[in-house]
Amino acid sequence: MSWMDGVPLWDHHCHALIGPSLAGDMEVFAYALTEAPRSYPLSDIQETVTYWQALAVAAKELGCEIDDQGVAEALRQRDFGAYSRSLFQQAGYKRLLIDTGFTPQGGWALPELETVLGVPILKILRLETTAQELLYQFADVRDWILAVKDRVKNARSQGYVGMKSIVAYRSGLEVYPVKTIDAQAAFAEMQKQGQTRLTDPRLLNYLLWEVTPVFISEALPLQFHTGHGDPDTNLYKGNPLLLREFLETFIPQGLQVTLLHTYPYHREAGYLASVYPRVYFDVSLALPLAASGAKRIVAEALELAPASRLLFASDSHTRPESFYLAATLWKQGLEAYCDHITQDHYILPQVAERWVNLIAWENCRRVYQL
Amino acid sequence: MSWMDGVPLWDHHCHALIGPSLAGDMEVFAYALTEAPRSYPLSDIQETVTYWQALAVAAKELGCEIDDQGVAEALRQRDFGAYSRSLFQQAGYKRLLIDTGFTPQGGWALPELETVLGVPILKILRLETTAQELLYQFADVRDWILAVKDRVKNARSQGYVGMKSIVAYRSGLEVYPVKTIDAQAAFAEMQKQGQTRLTDPRLLNYLLWEVTPVFISEALPLQFHTGHGDPDTNLYKGNPLLLREFLETFIPQGLQVTLLHTYPYHREAGYLASVYPRVYFDVSLALPLAASGAKRIVAEALELAPASRLLFASDSHTRPESFYLAATLWKQGLEAYCDHITQDHYILPQVAERWVNLIAWENCRRVYQL
Amino acid sequence: MSWMDGVPLWDHHCHALIGPSLAGDMEVFAYALTEAPRSYPLSDIQETVTYWQALAVAAKELGCEIDDQGVAEALRQRDFGAYSRSLFQQAGYKRLLIDTGFTPQGGWALPELETVLGVPILKILRLETTAQELLYQFADVRDWILAVKDRVKNARSQGYVGMKSIVAYRSGLEVYPVKTIDAQAAFAEMQKQGQTRLTDPRLLNYLLWEVTPVFISEALPLQFHTGHGDPDTNLYKGNPLLLREFLETFIPQGLQVTLLHTYPYHREAGYLASVYPRVYFDVSLALPLAASGAKRIVAEALELAPASRLLFASDSHTRPESFYLAATLWKQGLEAYCDHITQDHYILPQVAERWVNLIAWENCRRVYQL
Repeated sequence: MSWMDGVPLWDHHCHALIGPSLAGDMEVFAYALTEAPRSYPLSDIQETVTYWQALAVAAKELGCEIDDQGVAEALRQRDFGAYSRSLFQQAGYKRLLIDTGFTPQGGWALPELETVLGVPILKILRLETTAQELLYQFADVRDWILAVKDRVKNARSQGYVGMKSIVAYRSGLEVYPVKTIDAQAAFAEMQKQGQTRLTDPRLLNYLLWEVTPVFISEALPLQFHTGHGDPDTNLYKGNPLLLREFLETFIPQGLQVTLLHTYPYHREAGYLASVYPRVYFDVSLALPLAASGAKRIVAEALELAPASRLLFASDSHTRPESFYLAATLWKQGLEAYCDHITQDHYILPQVAERWVNLIAWENCRRVYQL
Repeated sequence: MSWMDGVPLWDHHCHALIGPSLAGDMEVFAYALTEAPRSYPLSDIQETVTYWQALAVAAKELGCEIDDQGVAEALRQRDFGAYSRSLFQQAGYKRLLIDTGFTPQGGWALPELETVLGVPILKILRLETTAQELLYQFADVRDWILAVKDRVKNARSQGYVGMKSIVAYRSGLEVYPVKTIDAQAAFAEMQKQGQTRLTDPRLLNYLLWEVTPVFISEALPLQFHTGHGDPDTNLYKGNPLLLREFLETFIPQGLQVTLLHTYPYHREAGYLASVYPRVYFDVSLALPLAASGAKRIVAEALELAPASRLLFASDSHTRPESFYLAATLWKQGLEAYCDHITQDHYILPQVAERWVNLIAWENCRRVYQL
Repeated sequence: MSWMDGVPLWDHHCHALIGPSLAGDMEVFAYALTEAPRSYPLSDIQETVTYWQALAVAAKELGCEIDDQGVAEALRQRDFGAYSRSLFQQAGYKRLLIDTGFTPQGGWALPELETVLGVPILKILRLETTAQELLYQFADVRDWILAVKDRVKNARSQGYVGMKSIVAYRSGLEVYPVKTIDAQAAFAEMQKQGQTRLTDPRLLNYLLWEVTPVFISEALPLQFHTGHGDPDTNLYKGNPLLLREFLETFIPQGLQVTLLHTYPYHREAGYLASVYPRVYFDVSLALPLAASGAKRIVAEALELAPASRLLFASDSHTRPESFYLAATLWKQGLEAYCDHITQDHYILPQVAERWVNLIAWENCRRVYQL
């Protein structure tokens, strides 16, 4: 039985694509399939399942051999927009929630991308980068916070349907409340030093703690980068269990949280989803990047978590093959999972069917109120 | 081949059942299948494998459809004692070690429960709650400790066959020795503030460190809550590896330790069991709550650990379906494990047979001297 | 299809064997198949898959029953050198990189062992034990460091092809830079107390941070003990993610790092290998000791990591059966992995073939420049 046939995919965490000018650049292709920076050897990326499976995706669509030069040549002869659209349509993408905090160079603008792909696009606003832009407009940390809150209040009117925090990339997920007097000291220090990147833990934590009530009043879900990411993140501090104090404080007040990526802490994320109201998560980035583990990772994510708490997401960017691959891997994982629970755990077929729809798109619709 | 056919189950960690008055209450049914509190949405519990598999267990026994209203109705028409007894007997339960620290409301008293189920019951005594009850009877922390020690010395005569520590719920598993002078200060402080719940880390650690020698002299095994539990526990501090200093101190003196639950740290628990004498563990609570992962979780637990160190347990409470489900999942896991090791690892069938008996009941008999 | 047929194995982390005098000692046999010390019950080791699978290896080679007494008797009647050689040859071992920091009692000297097994042997030098030997020859910590650096510079000429750090066994993997003045204080303190074992965190960290530039200039790869080991290591502090500051500092300078063992942190190690240049790892020790989990552990290690970053290793010592078993388990894991990725992930057979060769021996040749 094919559980996912015809089920639409709503991707609640992804990024924009490159445009046609870079379509045949196979270095861009490779580095879109890793979290490693450009200092990481290309030759190593070329020894991964993800890279070869993405090549196979491209080769099938292009009708060429599974070979980087063959794919590059075929790509240069193909309309990249039509090619991208074909992959998105085949994969079943019906809606994209794009994190605008990272955008590949030479990419389509979002309205253009929407037309190219034929998929409606909604946006997610990054808290820390938004706040960072406002840093030097104020002398008092409280004024800065007020300005950030104003931005958040205007987010919906600008097409944003959720917020994202990258505090895991800056000071880690053990988020705690900070006194205004300490935040003010850090604020003054930062301005004196002329720093433009917001890295002081006191400011990051103060910001998150102060602004979160507005996420609640605006009914904006808050995404957290957790787990796996580029080496700028300290994975040791990216364990979502560290969010405990934050969750204990704001979940009872009505905050909705989505834990992104989570791998290798996806069992921990599943635990959080199983005991806290309004906590959601995904295994994006691992699918597509941990391609060969797709079935196991999806199965582990669903050990404790209700099906109403896991969301489909790719965290893909730059290349359409990455989106196609992520979709394939999620489907592969969910197919195997449904076979398993209906065969070994007496789950009724209609229940399994409902669950794949929840994970594929309905949870997303509900959480982001789409 | 069916490795578990006719193998009795001794459950070394579980709780009591509700009585007939709540038999058809499907909210009680649902919340017995999660670690989430009542503030967690019922609708999310109803999107888990555990919930539906428990419904299937009930429906099969009751001869009705797998559907909550159908099950509720059938339950109200059935003798709940006979129903419970039937599930326990079919599952193969032959002995229960009940942690009396948590008892569902409206439940049978233990002597009555023993008769209802036709299964002998033994008891486990919680250290911290026992100590808490004695807090205000003494002015000196040393007198308090002496009184707790007396309780422990009398435990066997009152039907207790082991102790349980919930320090993971209070201050975490990184247990350390505390000076009497510091413990006395904490003791005085606590009494001054009129606290009735024992939460001060100094007191919790002092208590555990001081009383453990009596567990050894009384030959009482010490259970630790570790890993997965309700959100009152900080799962980040529930990693059994944090017990290192405690184990290094008391294991050489003869202490027997059983690490409860352990998920998602069951590989870590298996490691501890593989290098320390007298360290045992289980994957209760995950089985039944991480139902769809049963085979993988049992297999992971047995990667490093000898079969002589893993114990069957359910951590079930409230509902008989939970007990039945836990038993089914353990059996499913152990069946798959035995197939795997006899087919791929040249393990002799008679050895695999001995191992399932060890895990199912013989380890329990030996550890608790039954 | 058999992916590993005829593929040679180069073991980049293992130890020496016992000699014929202990060949039939079944206690030595058992304790060679665990990380537990002699205080751990023999009877528990005898309830592990590893123990029984090693017995089956011996019994097959000896033509006797799978039974410890039968094996012991047959071993005493067999030429132990020829027996060992046969197992190494059948397993496909073609080169051994032996860590000389641990050597079983009554073992062959390495030149002799090379002849007995018919396998070329190269050596790995332990940093901390080398440095420890030099501790009392100097009054100034800088002179001590200079002497250690000299030893490292002479390492290649003495047959060493890499270095190993056991800092995880002493103060943990959260390695940090230490000021010379603080190191000098610790150095004086240690000498005053007459300690011969290097355990002071300041000295251990200073040593590693000061000497690493010489590993780079000498192009000597640095192995780290991480993860699973005997209970002298604190597994909680053995998470390779803790090496972050060290990796961020020295990897850009050209250091090559191999993370040994890694279990249960092999997914974390795979992550590090996927984002940092020149970071390699293995799942030795888990294979052979977590025998029944071989397929899953290899598959998990290869979720994120390129095939160019995982190395075959056994961490075996003392007994030839342990080496044979490790080889069998790695092959079993890699066979299953290749079946999976070629069937479910469109990986070309020739790519999968290249990958098993990389993991089995080519990565080792390249990293250690053999």
